[in-house]
Amino acid sequence: MADGAGMAAETERMIERDGAKEPESAASGGETRKEMRVVLLTGFGGLNKLRVAKKAMPEPQEGEVKIRVKACGLNFLDLMVRQGNIDNPPKTPLVPGFECSGIVEAMGENTQGFEIGDRVMAFVNYSAWAEVVCTPLDFVYKIPDDMTFIEAAAFSMNFVAAYMMLFEVAALREGMSVLVHSAGGGVGQAVAQLCSTVSNVTVFGTASPFKHEAIKDSVTHLFDRNIDYVPEVKKISPEGVDIVLDCLCGENTGKGLGLLKPLGTYILYGSSNMVTGETKSFFSFAKSWWQVEKVNPIKLYEENKVMAGFSLLNLLFKQGGCKPVRSAVEKLFSLYNQKKIKPLVDSLWALEEVKEAMQRIHDRGNIGKLILDVEKPPTPLVTVTLYSFKVK
Amino acid sequence: MADGAGMAAETERMIERDGAKEPESAASGGETRKEMRVVLLTGFGGLNKLRVAKKAMPEPQEGEVKIRVKACGLNFLDLMVRQGNIDNPPKTPLVPGFECSGIVEAMGENTQGFEIGDRVMAFVNYSAWAEVVCTPLDFVYKIPDDMTFIEAAAFSMNFVAAYMMLFEVAALREGMSVLVHSAGGGVGQAVAQLCSTVSNVTVFGTASPFKHEAIKDSVTHLFDRNIDYVPEVKKISPEGVDIVLDCLCGENTGKGLGLLKPLGTYILYGSSNMVTGETKSFFSFAKSWWQVEKVNPIKLYEENKVMAGFSLLNLLFKQGGCKPVRSAVEKLFSLYNQKKIKPLVDSLWALEEVKEAMQRIHDRGNIGKLILDVEKPPTPLVTVTLYSFKVK
Repeated sequence: MADGAGMAAETERMIERDGAKEPESAASGGETRKEMRVVLLTGFGGLNKLRVAKKAMPEPQEGEVKIRVKACGLNFLDLMVRQGNIDNPPKTPLVPGFECSGIVEAMGENTQGFEIGDRVMAFVNYSAWAEVVCTPLDFVYKIPDDMTFIEAAAFSMNFVAAYMMLFEVAALREGMSVLVHSAGGGVGQAVAQLCSTVSNVTVFGTASPFKHEAIKDSVTHLFDRNIDYVPEVKKISPEGVDIVLDCLCGENTGKGLGLLKPLGTYILYGSSNMVTGETKSFFSFAKSWWQVEKVNPIKLYEENKVMAGFSLLNLLFKQGGCKPVRSAVEKLFSLYNQKKIKPLVDSLWALEEVKEAMQRIHDRGNIGKLILDVEKPPTPLVTVTLYSFKVK
Repeated sequence: MADGAGMAAETERMIERDGAKEPESAASGGETRKEMRVVLLTGFGGLNKLRVAKKAMPEPQEGEVKIRVKACGLNFLDLMVRQGNIDNPPKTPLVPGFECSGIVEAMGENTQGFEIGDRVMAFVNYSAWAEVVCTPLDFVYKIPDDMTFIEAAAFSMNFVAAYMMLFEVAALREGMSVLVHSAGGGVGQAVAQLCSTVSNVTVFGTASPFKHEAIKDSVTHLFDRNIDYVPEVKKISPEGVDIVLDCLCGENTGKGLGLLKPLGTYILYGSSNMVTGETKSFFSFAKSWWQVEKVNPIKLYEENKVMAGFSLLNLLFKQGGCKPVRSAVEKLFSLYNQKKIKPLVDSLWALEEVKEAMQRIHDRGNIGKLILDVEKPPTPLVTVTLYSFKVK
């Protein structure tokens, strides 16, 4: 924390940009450059393991699309990767990042459906935080004309995860209620917006008190994340809620299952409790992991409850789930075009500012999504107080 | 088994009856009778605890409907009740049975929506196996004109459970695959029929070999229930299945979860493995119960899987779930009227034959639903070999 405090200085940043009008210099000349800038993770651990470096530019293999990256998404998961707090972590050095947006610059063989110049968003199995990315076309999606690159990078993981959890894993319908933790985060805001596309849905959210003013209109009932939300929810809805989305894990699984109405669905979609300090702490990791209460299927039978887990990256990269994901993306783009949803962007950061960005997400300072803006020069830091920080 | 073998003799029985043409004697004279015939369970244990007895006829309380019963459903659950193999068993003596059909004979106060003479099916929290039943109007449904009382009694629990599991807990859609155990049983046949209402659904079923000929057209792939179905399913569908419905419990939970595709749903809806012998055996009960593998939510997260439990009776009688159940009943009646579904009745039994009926379900001899036909006189037993037994 002492280490991070200085870096967590806040800056006021422009978050609006017309993605369609890109400077020509970025797209042209790409063919002759053989190196690119990337964010490099040199080993698992603290922020000091991150730096910007030059790396050989990749060329697309068969079935791959080469993308000139404009913007990348930064997720809580990236902090866990940095600390090595994931199953089977890859070898370092590595380039982190799982999502980006940009312009198609080249295609490998057998890549129907894309043309050079297409504006796209993409999932990448690591290596998104770079000027150029190559990824299989199964993970690439043309974005709507009105969607900026910043929006697209803020859109992919958060909205797809929120959509699939609400509508594929659970079956959100009129009149239902949803509890979401970290309501001010990227997924939390996507959940809130998607709930508002269904009539008469009640959203219960938890968030740090300083975020309440900024997000209060997106959530029906907001609770301080530092208090026990169970009695608060029960005061308002004694019979419980229909869907619980839990990114916290640990003691929350039992609490979440306990809050469900009959036929309700609890979904574990992350485990942000696991990141507790600057460096990997095996103890804190193991504690979270093993404290997870195992669940007896017969309890679910007696109580008519559903328990689910959702990991978008496993679905995409380990389990061959591109088809349902593409279907979700298409439905989401339709909602975007109808102006029913719009990604909430917290702040933009240059590649060189990745440490400050990570510290901000670690400190739960963000409201909406943090974006690495690949063409943005580092901004001289201007400190503002957290409590006066407001989006738009 | 030795005890049950004699009783398990099979008889050929008429299963067709026009429910609309009831003998007048049954409906008339009801007002003056103060006693009724019931099946009485005198204590938990073997078949010898069951007998037909006279009991005072109930009168409807406020909000209740009094039904002159025509037919009752017999379920595997009734065997578990008989053995006391359920949580918090009620006190004996008791009248078993959770579902029946018949004619409305009287209403208590505040019972809008029903009239004397209405043809209905009903859920009852015990006491269905009687000539007269009183139950809250929340659990009573007017049946379609074309539906016989026999069909209605065969319909209620099995089709409602199958529908809610397939369409409410899971979300069965075009092109999906479903694994159902005991495919020849009441729920199994309801599942198979409901799957056929959605295009291109593959049904994997397990059943005793002698049932295969009778049910082979309702199921895409049939396996012998005595072999390990996991490699058989994987041979046909290496990626697994979308929905596993498990009424067996125990070692099957892990096997069922293991067979799921990503985003697939495992539903535990019963625990018929728990009934292992003639009398309650605490050891066999405890063995099944404790051998159930508890599941770590993080495993579901990593594998993108859903684990659910479904108990229709708990939903109705403990958890206030009449509203979603009524909604399911309405959708099912619509499918029935479109002739897309039709309950498969195994055999009809007089109240006095309840022991033979129970033995048949215990021995897994049934194909479809066993019905207690309240007006049926006991039939002299005619032994036929099991293997030549055929419905219709």
